Amino acid sequence: MKYLLRLSYLGSSFSGFQVQCGRTENTVQGELCRAGRELFRTECKVSGCSRTDSGVHALDYAATLETESETVISPEKLPRALGAFLPPEIVVYSATEVDENYSVRRHVVGKEYEYLILNSPSPSPFLTDRAWHVPHALDEDKMNEAAKHFVGAHDFCAFMASGSDVKNTVRTVTKCEVTREGDYVKVSVAADGFLYNMVRIIVGTLVEVSEGKIAAGDIPDVILSCQRKRAGRTAPPEGLYLKTVTLDN
Amino acid sequence: MKYLLRLSYLGSSFSGFQVQCGRTENTVQGELCRAGRELFRTECKVSGCSRTDSGVHALDYAATLETESETVISPEKLPRALGAFLPPEIVVYSATEVDENYSVRRHVVGKEYEYLILNSPSPSPFLTDRAWHVPHALDEDKMNEAAKHFVGAHDFCAFMASGSDVKNTVRTVTKCEVTREGDYVKVSVAADGFLYNMVRIIVGTLVEVSEGKIAAGDIPDVILSCQRKRAGRTAPPEGLYLKTVTLDN
Repeated sequence: MKYLLRLSYLGSSFSGFQVQCGRTENTVQGELCRAGRELFRTECKVSGCSRTDSGVHALDYAATLETESETVISPEKLPRALGAFLPPEIVVYSATEVDENYSVRRHVVGKEYEYLILNSPSPSPFLTDRAWHVPHALDEDKMNEAAKHFVGAHDFCAFMASGSDVKNTVRTVTKCEVTREGDYVKVSVAADGFLYNMVRIIVGTLVEVSEGKIAAGDIPDVILSCQRKRAGRTAPPEGLYLKTVTLDN
Repeated sequence: MKYLLRLSYLGSSFSGFQVQCGRTENTVQGELCRAGRELFRTECKVSGCSRTDSGVHALDYAATLETESETVISPEKLPRALGAFLPPEIVVYSATEVDENYSVRRHVVGKEYEYLILNSPSPSPFLTDRAWHVPHALDEDKMNEAAKHFVGAHDFCAFMASGSDVKNTVRTVTKCEVTREGDYVKVSVAADGFLYNMVRIIVGTLVEVSEGKIAAGDIPDVILSCQRKRAGRTAPPEGLYLKTVTLDN
C-alpha cells in the first residue's frame, strides 16, 4: 500500500529531508522510514517532494510512504499510528491512499517558501535556529522594490549555489514579496520550482540591497549576468520554511 | 556595582529560574551567575523578580546582578558582553545601574502571564515544549465567560498548589481573558501577585469549563470554597509565559 503524507517538521535537528548515501546523520526521510518499519514491521520506502537543506523547516511537506506489509492501516488512522514512532520534530497530519505508481515529485506544480528575519538589536531565545537574526535596521520598502524584479520567467543561474549540475536553470517566480510586522521581516517566494539555494541567495541579495551594496534597480542586470558573484550572499538555512507544496491532483 | 537586567528565556532547558539548594539542575539564575563570573572573573550575586517553574518561559523578566569586580562595564555594553557567556536560551536585552540596596522583588507591582494552548487535532513540531496541545475543540466564549469571574480581589487559596505555605492568599487579578486566533487559544492573566501554580490551575479550570465539567457560573463558588479539589487540573508548564513584570520605578 502506498500513502501520500502531508507533514511538517522542525529542521533544526535534521541534516535535511533526504538520506545521504554513505552518511549517518538524522534526516526526515530516515526518521519516516524507521517509523514505518517499526509500525508495519517491514521495510518501507519513503520519497519526498523535494530536498530541503540541513536546518531548513517545512510547514507543509508532501511525501509518499510505501509498505509491502499485509497489515492494513486506514489512511485516517495512519498519522496518529506513525506519530507514535516519530520524534516530536516531525508531525504527519494527513494521509491518503495513492496508486503504487504515484511519484510525488512528478506531481509538484508549485512551491512557496517563507524566509523569516528577526530584525532587532537583540536576538530572541525563542527564535534560535528558527530565524536569521539581523541586528541592523533593514529597509523593507527598498527590499520589496528589488523583490519585484524576481517575478516572472527568468534564467536564475546567478541565484544557484555553485557546484549544482542542473541543466535548465529557467524558473517562473509567481510571487516575491517582503513584509514587516514589528521586528519580523518576511520574504515570501513562490515559483514552479527552485534551484539549489535559490531562495537563500535571493534573501541574501535583498539584505544587501537594504545595506546599499546592490541597487534595487540593478537586479534585472544581476539576473541577466548569470554570474553567482554578482548576487548577494547566501542567507543561513535556519530562517527558511517550505510553506506549501502544490500538487496537481 | 549592581545592574538591573531585563531578559527573556526559553524555559524548556531549565529547572526554573531559581537555583535549588543541594540540586545541580540547570537554572536561569545559575547560568546568569556563571556568565557573570566568567565575564567579571569574580563571584556575582543574582536575584530574580519571581520564581518560575521548570519549563516555564519568560518574555520579559527582571533580575539584578551584583559584582565586586573593579572592572567597570557600562550598562549599555553589559547585555552583549554577558551574552557572550550565556546559552542562546537566555537573552539579556537591557541593563541599568541600580543602588546596591535595590531589591528587585520589592519593586514588583504587577505581573502578566500568557498561557498558550494549541487547539488543533495534530500537534505542531514548532510548538513542542512551547504550548499545551489540546486536541479536542475548546469553546473560547464559554472559557472567557468563566474567566471574568477571576477579576477582582479574591482569596485564591483554591487556586494554589497544595504544599505551599504562603499565609496571605488574597490577590487582585486585573485581567483574565481568553482569546482565539485560528488554532491558538491564549489566556492572559494579570495581577499584583500570584500564588504557586495559580495561572496553571486557572487555565486547567477554564479548560474544564469548556469540557462541561465545571459550569462557568460556578467559578465564584469554587473561589469561595477555598478547596483546591473544587478547581480544575493544573495545566502543564510548557504553555506558560511570564509576559511582563511591572516595577514601581
